[in-house]
Amino acid sequence: MQWTKVLGLGLGAAALLGLGIILGHFAIPKKANSPAPSISAPQDLDLEILETVMGQLDAHRIRENLRELSREPHLASSPRDEDLVQLLLQRWKDPESGLDSAEAFTYEVLLSFPSQEQPNVVDIVGPTGDIIHSCHRTEENVTGEQGGPDVIQPYAAYAPSGNPQAVNAAKHGVAGVLVYTDPADINDGLSSPSETFPNSWYLPPSGVERGSYYKYFGDPLTPYLPAIPSSFRLDLANISGFPPIPTQPIGFQDARDLLCNLNGTSAPTTWQGALGCHYRLGPGFRPDGNFSADSQVNVSVYNRLELRNSSNVLGIIRGAVEPDRYVLYGNHRDSWVHGAVDPSSGTAVLLELSRVLGTLLKKGTWRPRRSIVFASWGAEEFGLIGSTEFTEEFFNKLQERTVAYINVDIAVFANATLRVQGTPPVQSVVFSATKEIRSPGPGDLSIYDNWIRYFNRSSPVYGLVPSLGSLGAGSDYAPFIHFLGISSMDIAYTYDRSKTSARIYPTYHTAFDTFDYVDKFLDPGFSSHQAVARTAGSIILRLSDSFFLPLKVSDYSETLRSFLQAAQQDLGALLEQHSISLGPLVTAVEKFEAEAAALGQRISMLQKGSPDPLQVRMLNDQLMLLERSFLNPRAFPEERYYSHVLWAARTGSVATFPGLSNACSRANDTASGSEAWAEVQRQLSIVVTALEGAAATLRPVADL
Amino acid sequence: MQWTKVLGLGLGAAALLGLGIILGHFAIPKKANSPAPSISAPQDLDLEILETVMGQLDAHRIRENLRELSREPHLASSPRDEDLVQLLLQRWKDPESGLDSAEAFTYEVLLSFPSQEQPNVVDIVGPTGDIIHSCHRTEENVTGEQGGPDVIQPYAAYAPSGNPQAVNAAKHGVAGVLVYTDPADINDGLSSPSETFPNSWYLPPSGVERGSYYKYFGDPLTPYLPAIPSSFRLDLANISGFPPIPTQPIGFQDARDLLCNLNGTSAPTTWQGALGCHYRLGPGFRPDGNFSADSQVNVSVYNRLELRNSSNVLGIIRGAVEPDRYVLYGNHRDSWVHGAVDPSSGTAVLLELSRVLGTLLKKGTWRPRRSIVFASWGAEEFGLIGSTEFTEEFFNKLQERTVAYINVDIAVFANATLRVQGTPPVQSVVFSATKEIRSPGPGDLSIYDNWIRYFNRSSPVYGLVPSLGSLGAGSDYAPFIHFLGISSMDIAYTYDRSKTSARIYPTYHTAFDTFDYVDKFLDPGFSSHQAVARTAGSIILRLSDSFFLPLKVSDYSETLRSFLQAAQQDLGALLEQHSISLGPLVTAVEKFEAEAAALGQRISMLQKGSPDPLQVRMLNDQLMLLERSFLNPRAFPEERYYSHVLWAARTGSVATFPGLSNACSRANDTASGSEAWAEVQRQLSIVVTALEGAAATLRPVADL
Repeated sequence: MQWTKVLGLGLGAAALLGLGIILGHFAIPKKANSPAPSISAPQDLDLEILETVMGQLDAHRIRENLRELSREPHLASSPRDEDLVQLLLQRWKDPESGLDSAEAFTYEVLLSFPSQEQPNVVDIVGPTGDIIHSCHRTEENVTGEQGGPDVIQPYAAYAPSGNPQAVNAAKHGVAGVLVYTDPADINDGLSSPSETFPNSWYLPPSGVERGSYYKYFGDPLTPYLPAIPSSFRLDLANISGFPPIPTQPIGFQDARDLLCNLNGTSAPTTWQGALGCHYRLGPGFRPDGNFSADSQVNVSVYNRLELRNSSNVLGIIRGAVEPDRYVLYGNHRDSWVHGAVDPSSGTAVLLELSRVLGTLLKKGTWRPRRSIVFASWGAEEFGLIGSTEFTEEFFNKLQERTVAYINVDIAVFANATLRVQGTPPVQSVVFSATKEIRSPGPGDLSIYDNWIRYFNRSSPVYGLVPSLGSLGAGSDYAPFIHFLGISSMDIAYTYDRSKTSARIYPTYHTAFDTFDYVDKFLDPGFSSHQAVARTAGSIILRLSDSFFLPLKVSDYSETLRSFLQAAQQDLGALLEQHSISLGPLVTAVEKFEAEAAALGQRISMLQKGSPDPLQVRMLNDQLMLLERSFLNPRAFPEERYYSHVLWAARTGSVATFPGLSNACSRANDTASGSEAWAEVQRQLSIVVTALEGAAATLRPVADL
Repeated sequence: MQWTKVLGLGLGAAALLGLGIILGHFAIPKKANSPAPSISAPQDLDLEILETVMGQLDAHRIRENLRELSREPHLASSPRDEDLVQLLLQRWKDPESGLDSAEAFTYEVLLSFPSQEQPNVVDIVGPTGDIIHSCHRTEENVTGEQGGPDVIQPYAAYAPSGNPQAVNAAKHGVAGVLVYTDPADINDGLSSPSETFPNSWYLPPSGVERGSYYKYFGDPLTPYLPAIPSSFRLDLANISGFPPIPTQPIGFQDARDLLCNLNGTSAPTTWQGALGCHYRLGPGFRPDGNFSADSQVNVSVYNRLELRNSSNVLGIIRGAVEPDRYVLYGNHRDSWVHGAVDPSSGTAVLLELSRVLGTLLKKGTWRPRRSIVFASWGAEEFGLIGSTEFTEEFFNKLQERTVAYINVDIAVFANATLRVQGTPPVQSVVFSATKEIRSPGPGDLSIYDNWIRYFNRSSPVYGLVPSLGSLGAGSDYAPFIHFLGISSMDIAYTYDRSKTSARIYPTYHTAFDTFDYVDKFLDPGFSSHQAVARTAGSIILRLSDSFFLPLKVSDYSETLRSFLQAAQQDLGALLEQHSISLGPLVTAVEKFEAEAAALGQRISMLQKGSPDPLQVRMLNDQLMLLERSFLNPRAFPEERYYSHVLWAARTGSVATFPGLSNACSRANDTASGSEAWAEVQRQLSIVVTALEGAAATLRPVADL
């Protein structure tokens, strides 16, 4: 698409200009490079160091990192994945630009692969079993990169093997599932080869989205235990969360052959797509179509479960003053195929960040106040496995010491704007960072000023501000926020929604997600990658070097207030009918608001003077540990890892506390006094207890 | 018994002498009273302050406290219990000798009481229903204190009401239960009025032990939630842990009438007691006895469940340097009747400790480095309810900040020796304290030297040392160690087992547990009370004032090693048969030992220099938080609150990790591959993960 190219080039050009402006941007008294400060000095954020880091984060080096990382497919536990483990270790142990130490941590985890001997097949067969039509087993080799031996056949990981044969077997219970992405959802309706990659960023007709179909996250055999070799493993028969029936993804060109020949009643309007025909539900093929009415679809899945070794790579910069406080920054390393965007765009940024900080470290120019931990997670695509096993193995150490977790997975979905998902306490540090960094692209907007044009909300406290999204479970931040209760964020550059409605960048999880795809279409010049690196770098420095932690706990008050208002407006009447009062919740929210505000004032007072490092440490502990007080491991017995009573998965329709919302939607049509209504009351008490407990942690520490 | 009296008087006399010696005992450079130190000073334990506190803890004042506390029965939630709440608040708010602040926290909890209109009765009735014999409904009024309106009728709290009638209904399934304490178990065989209180410390024939028969602890209606009015409460029908059938305790004089007239086969030798007859199992009464063979025993229980308000009283001395670190000291306030021993002996000590420390505080002589929190718990006798609700309400705040919990419930069981139950890290501070305090009684032994004569063990590290017992769930320390994972201890003075085999002091939970009982028999002169006060006071000061926390984590290594050896010796072969290896456990224990030793060395090194307060804070956090790393809320799904993988209740016979021991005893007679053996493997992995995680928290904080 032209607009992408033009915007891309525009950004590329603007970035150099932007860099110049940034270098001049800070007006700070310069001082000579100093060695690591003495431990007793109240070391604070050094804006000169920040400026240096911003200036040294190099778009070209990010591009070269990406070229290397995405040169070959690097599926989890593959030889190339292992090569990249070595590459990371070598970079992080480099005497000129490495970290204090780096190490690989290996787990033995259950992965799922298609059989090489017996590829999964989707055929249309006649009544005598003769094959009339076969769906493609591989993607078309349009750039020479789709045909290699390491390009894994499209499949649905963890879908069971089997050989169902039917056409729209729904009426007898579904026997198998075929999955495809419609051009209407991924390609803005375009579907011809001339309109798709390599001629545009859109998905070619043969492109197939791979993915994991596991319901939970973490190693399926060792829930809540690290997948070290000696750990207890579930019996395969006792695993829950795998798809019950054979499932296979196909490309839209194959989907067209099937869907456009179906007979039967029309599919709902919302199901109609851009395959150039009217979608029907079947059963059977239409008599006037390509296949005789008595033809059948044969889906043969030969996926296999295998125990494989998968490694996380961790690197650390030791804090000079508070080494036991960790700023954790991570991304996964494994891809489905070449994974230039997912996840190598993030890993390319990770490597450039560690190079710049490592170089300052090795020169003796700088050492952070707190420790900085870099992580390259394994087997994320199969279900956040590496990061989850890490949190299981080091649960207490991480929960007691981690200031925040920063995740940059796909660094650049598109070139338009920053997009941040995170918990409320990180909003302020993200804002501080992005206000000081030039946005790529024309004009001299800051990343913040550009961001607010695309995503914004009206805050009762701040007025119009960029809106942070909330964290789901889409990447490795999930175990950190949901299981450990650590303030987390996920950072990327993303779309202009007025330009595309693509569900996600079109070649997501296909063999077309390659270096050239990024270089030509997603981020020519890599200025968006650089913008993400600078944003993440500034946030890392602010979190690791600031004397007072830049976590603003009072920003949770807005969230709690909005959850409360949603509960009052959308559930209040219903709850009243069942004599359940929201009064205690109102009181708890008010108490939290008051304590958070008071703590903010005590911090401001202290900042005016020259506070004792221990005093600040105590306040910082209150800020760091607030998020933990929202955890309740007994809140959601049916979930796995989800224990955060504010951010657990919400299935209920009301945008309020998830436990309350979900319990209400389940209880809705049951009588008062039912178990379901008791669960609503239990969920309400769990939230009230969490909020009261959170408020208690924010009070002056010697108040009763 | 003479020996008690004589020993008592001897102790009384020796105490004054002992005090003199203690005052001269410390050779420390004196310095003028200084105001609270500036926050930046590395404030450390001040031995002069310690000496002052030891000298000021006054046996006479403890005696006067006890007289006031035990003047009237103060059953949980009774008016007198409320009066004592006010007494504590008034003492702790006293301008000359109070704390920085004090407050009552009230919960609405489910208690159980006998009916005043319909007393519980145990009768023997003839075939026509005529009452032949009635058991006593009250205890004999031997001192004028057993007859008051506030003396609650003996009962089994939480036993259901009902009216079963039978004699030894076992053959048809037990319909009701009568409970008594045999003179052989409580009175060293003595049972006549002339041999029992008020003529000796032994239980009079009419004495009846009250108690709670609830299986769990905490408020039965609000497991895991604080029992604030708004909290979700279980339906009565969904409560688990109450006795299934009517139950009533009786005195041994009534037990004699029943038991000595029973017919049938002989009871086992171990069941024979000191009631002066041969015990038989029934069924029925013997023809030549006091009751006709067709008589029946009629047990009528009219206990009622009631929601009552019960309060904890909390008082705090704000720490001067690290106010967010809490040394928590507590005891329950509620008794069954006058409760002079249980719990008022402990509360009398608590009040004397808070007076002495409060006086130094108000004078400006002293303020501890860390905060000291005093607690008077409500409704302990019904199941540790006040302390449990407190831990539920302030879970995170307490878990993040509490250095240790010190419990003194019954301060003095008897006059012979100190007895301490606790987790390994507190051993060293208990030893340091007791080596410096004179023991009551003849000779000039320290409490430590006296203690080692009664309870000792041979430590591979230290040689012969006093042996600490391990913590069960017998008092308010239970929620702190099992639910929060806070290092805890329970301190008391207790028996010379060569002088008595009494299960516990004879008037336990009866109306004979009175001030005179303590004053005449248990601790005349109150020198043992004073010894407990000094021991607890010294431990409080060492924990709250020491620059380096006196918690020795390497003392856990001995425990782990002994658990490991028990597992290897008593379970190794069995596990091998089922192809379960202890190898990973061996590795984990070795890793813990190495890391604990290395941390100890780093601390010693640092102590030689003049370490930065932040450095010490970081090390102290490692020491304080170690205990937390042994918690796993998912380890014992069938238990309530028990999450400490080293100290959870052990039903298995092997003295090793409780989860492993219990799982093995359940799996013992099942086939390999059974669910039970899978649970053994799961429990083994849970322990290994906890130990590996614990070792990780002890490593240098910036090591990966």
